[in-house]
Amino acid sequence: MASPIASAALKARVKRPSMLKKLCQPKDLLHHFPNGSYIGWSGFTGVGYPKKMPTYLADHVEQNNLQGKLRYNLFVGASSGAETENRWASLDMIERRAPHQVGKSIAKGINEGRINFFDKHLSMFPVDLVYGFYTKDKPGNKLDVVVVEATEILEDGSIVPGASVGASPELIQMADKIIIEVNTAIPSFKGLHDITMTDLPPRRKPYLIMGVEDRIGTTSIPIDTEKVVGVIESDYQDQTLPNSPADDTSKAIAGHLIEFLEHEVRHGRLPANLLPLQSGIGNIANAVIGGLADSNFKNLNVWTEVIQDTFLDLFDSGRLDFATATSIRFSPTGFERFYSNWESYENKLLLRSQQVSNSPEIIRRLGVIGMNTPVEVDMYAHANSTCVMGSRMLNGLGGSADFLRSSKYSIMHTPSTRPTKTDPHGVSCIVPMCTHVDQTEHDLDVIVTENGLADVRGLSPRERARVIIDKCAHDVYKPILTAYFDKAEYECLRKGMGHEPHLLWQAFDMHRALSEEGSMQKVKPW
Amino acid sequence: MASPIASAALKARVKRPSMLKKLCQPKDLLHHFPNGSYIGWSGFTGVGYPKKMPTYLADHVEQNNLQGKLRYNLFVGASSGAETENRWASLDMIERRAPHQVGKSIAKGINEGRINFFDKHLSMFPVDLVYGFYTKDKPGNKLDVVVVEATEILEDGSIVPGASVGASPELIQMADKIIIEVNTAIPSFKGLHDITMTDLPPRRKPYLIMGVEDRIGTTSIPIDTEKVVGVIESDYQDQTLPNSPADDTSKAIAGHLIEFLEHEVRHGRLPANLLPLQSGIGNIANAVIGGLADSNFKNLNVWTEVIQDTFLDLFDSGRLDFATATSIRFSPTGFERFYSNWESYENKLLLRSQQVSNSPEIIRRLGVIGMNTPVEVDMYAHANSTCVMGSRMLNGLGGSADFLRSSKYSIMHTPSTRPTKTDPHGVSCIVPMCTHVDQTEHDLDVIVTENGLADVRGLSPRERARVIIDKCAHDVYKPILTAYFDKAEYECLRKGMGHEPHLLWQAFDMHRALSEEGSMQKVKPW
Repeated sequence: MASPIASAALKARVKRPSMLKKLCQPKDLLHHFPNGSYIGWSGFTGVGYPKKMPTYLADHVEQNNLQGKLRYNLFVGASSGAETENRWASLDMIERRAPHQVGKSIAKGINEGRINFFDKHLSMFPVDLVYGFYTKDKPGNKLDVVVVEATEILEDGSIVPGASVGASPELIQMADKIIIEVNTAIPSFKGLHDITMTDLPPRRKPYLIMGVEDRIGTTSIPIDTEKVVGVIESDYQDQTLPNSPADDTSKAIAGHLIEFLEHEVRHGRLPANLLPLQSGIGNIANAVIGGLADSNFKNLNVWTEVIQDTFLDLFDSGRLDFATATSIRFSPTGFERFYSNWESYENKLLLRSQQVSNSPEIIRRLGVIGMNTPVEVDMYAHANSTCVMGSRMLNGLGGSADFLRSSKYSIMHTPSTRPTKTDPHGVSCIVPMCTHVDQTEHDLDVIVTENGLADVRGLSPRERARVIIDKCAHDVYKPILTAYFDKAEYECLRKGMGHEPHLLWQAFDMHRALSEEGSMQKVKPW
Repeated sequence: MASPIASAALKARVKRPSMLKKLCQPKDLLHHFPNGSYIGWSGFTGVGYPKKMPTYLADHVEQNNLQGKLRYNLFVGASSGAETENRWASLDMIERRAPHQVGKSIAKGINEGRINFFDKHLSMFPVDLVYGFYTKDKPGNKLDVVVVEATEILEDGSIVPGASVGASPELIQMADKIIIEVNTAIPSFKGLHDITMTDLPPRRKPYLIMGVEDRIGTTSIPIDTEKVVGVIESDYQDQTLPNSPADDTSKAIAGHLIEFLEHEVRHGRLPANLLPLQSGIGNIANAVIGGLADSNFKNLNVWTEVIQDTFLDLFDSGRLDFATATSIRFSPTGFERFYSNWESYENKLLLRSQQVSNSPEIIRRLGVIGMNTPVEVDMYAHANSTCVMGSRMLNGLGGSADFLRSSKYSIMHTPSTRPTKTDPHGVSCIVPMCTHVDQTEHDLDVIVTENGLADVRGLSPRERARVIIDKCAHDVYKPILTAYFDKAEYECLRKGMGHEPHLLWQAFDMHRALSEEGSMQKVKPW
């Protein structure tokens, strides 16, 4: 095989000559991917993922009609790009996938039973991987091949990732063979990362992070260069989508939240510059961060999983001092803005591994304000983050439980209703009982909808139910939920089992009405 | 009021003269307990709790027919002695209680709606208390009066607790007034504690604990002596009960577990002396620890919440090097054995605050092996730890979720069935869907019954269901659960929502059969 000739751009990014000698093209590496392989990819929330090798493998399957004949066990920190993992799913190339995913074809494959998917706390996935839990039935206990994107290879062979760190350190630790895609289409991210590897107990140490800007690691990921079987030049950007814009509902939610934070500052329970903020993905998260840019808060800090476009606004408003995460997932225009103003952001940003960004240890120590969007919340403050109607997987748990378990303020925000085909309020996001529980009543402090904010700290379940229905439910569902609660309370107290009253055989009747009649409003009287 | 004369025993325990001047009797302190007060007690799992003041207040209510007229908001680290909290409940003296409780009367009061109870992760309760979350609706944001048991008061006024630390440091931090009961009926526990107080973010530091024996604090709890309104001599022991002995079922469970641990050592996923063990309360826990005493493991370590009698056997077997917890809850004969062999145990034991013993930070760092007993587990590996039939509170969450979320191995052990009045196997502890979820599918690694052990690491929900039914369910329930799963899988895959298949409207039919016909075996075909 003739090695391709290294471009000037590539030479500028690869500082170790022996690595340039490994330059090759994806087709040269096909033999490393036999059917059934255990594969790891870099990437997190659709940035920093490998592009050339997965795309080549998909082309190979498509062109040779190998659908269903080359199937892989695929491990990525969180989601990869749609043109890679989702295309793999549509070509039936995924046997097993963890711990998160995004894409219509992959969700379809999971929900039709063709892909064995499990979702796991994103902080814990890399640790369990290094424990050997996910390769325990495999000789050698390693991942066969790990493909990572780098924006630079340093003299010592270590790699500088791109816009995410995710689980790359641990995937690389567990790799038998490593393929590096050096992306020359985006700038080198050198200096923007704080990399830590995973020790095993009893040799594990504390994360000595006391503030969002603290560095405890290195700026690149160490690599056992003998394991590198190929280096590929990659020449296109992360394929991200535009942001979901804030709407009236999300703006109303953001308004309630900011009012609550001001209230907590007034009562001395939060410092004037708050505590580090964590914010999920989606239009409510964007509205909240956008709202903070228009607020009176100053010297804010962010300790989160993913940094999105609105954080750029928050930086530019002068209100945000520092932000750290495991991934920068900007829209295409967001990346343009970021790259062209690199100097103004680079000293205010730090990317860490997902084990660190989502670490319960650090989240609890820093007193993070955690905010996430669920599928549904129930009147006792359990939340469903993953499975619609208890069964259909959306994207996976993500870091929601990492943050909501350990944050100082554990906040769930959701519209009070969602539309169905026949009813603009066909789905109530406040239900009697969640059809799947990912966050428990022992985790959540605050629930917010456009209707209002329920502060459930220190409340018993029956007290919680009243305030959640009153503050959060939509007006059309208040009488329905109140009737359920009243009847459940009456029946259960009478039987001496009224701590958390339920009509167990009717708890999902609203979901049944939705399923059978197209709207939860059609539920029969309890 | 004439102060009582200090006994010689008391003088030997109170090293600060000004504290002896505060010596008084419970009746002298009655005025500190107006109706509606926010009260804290020391104590954890029925040891180290105050005895004289609570008993006097109960006598006062009883003798003056004040039932329902003196009601309190009561905060204790976990459970207190039955003769105190349970008697208070039977005299209708508890308005609100958190985060745990034990006793028939108090459970009755909660389930009949007279007591507002909320259960909270035991690691998090003290932090939320110091945040002011539980006193936020109260002027001054403090607890009115905190009653703590001490076995010694030192020269600087700090106190040496007894057999538990629990939430005492934080309760004392939050106290307006402090009452100290010096217990002269038990030895001074000086040297047996490692005390840390709670800082608020952004000033919070890592817990620099890298091994179970590491000390990071002081041997006594600092006290603002000006807040001490009275010192009482206490003269009787913690009223504990005998241990639940191991039976054939719990011994079979222990056997499966020890075999699993040996398997993990053999495959290099655990060191030969394992990693720190956490073990819950009850006869299964006793069988597991008893089984380890008869095993080939050596140099074991324990990082747990509560140390029970069987740990003495494990020490005496020479297999246990060190154990640390927040409470030593021995039976009366266990305490006798402990006190009479003090020298052989005192350098192998350390008691910490519940915030530290249950800290996710340390549990994850040390790679703890966490083992707990649930109410029920479902076929997808969610577990119910608290609410029978989704509604009736047993004792509360305790530290189960602290350990099961963060442990390296998260293990649930339960008998496969429990008897009802009419059926020795009337209740299956493996159910289609838990009626209340405290531990999620994202938390559990292993489920064990006397039938076998299900290792669900890295499995998708449908794979998990098959192995849990196969390995853990009782033979009489295997066909019932398999039929549910098969039908749910068929229906949900067909609809493209089969990630975690459920027949949502029938998910609790086994519970319904139990409720209406006395046995889950009577469930109608799905």
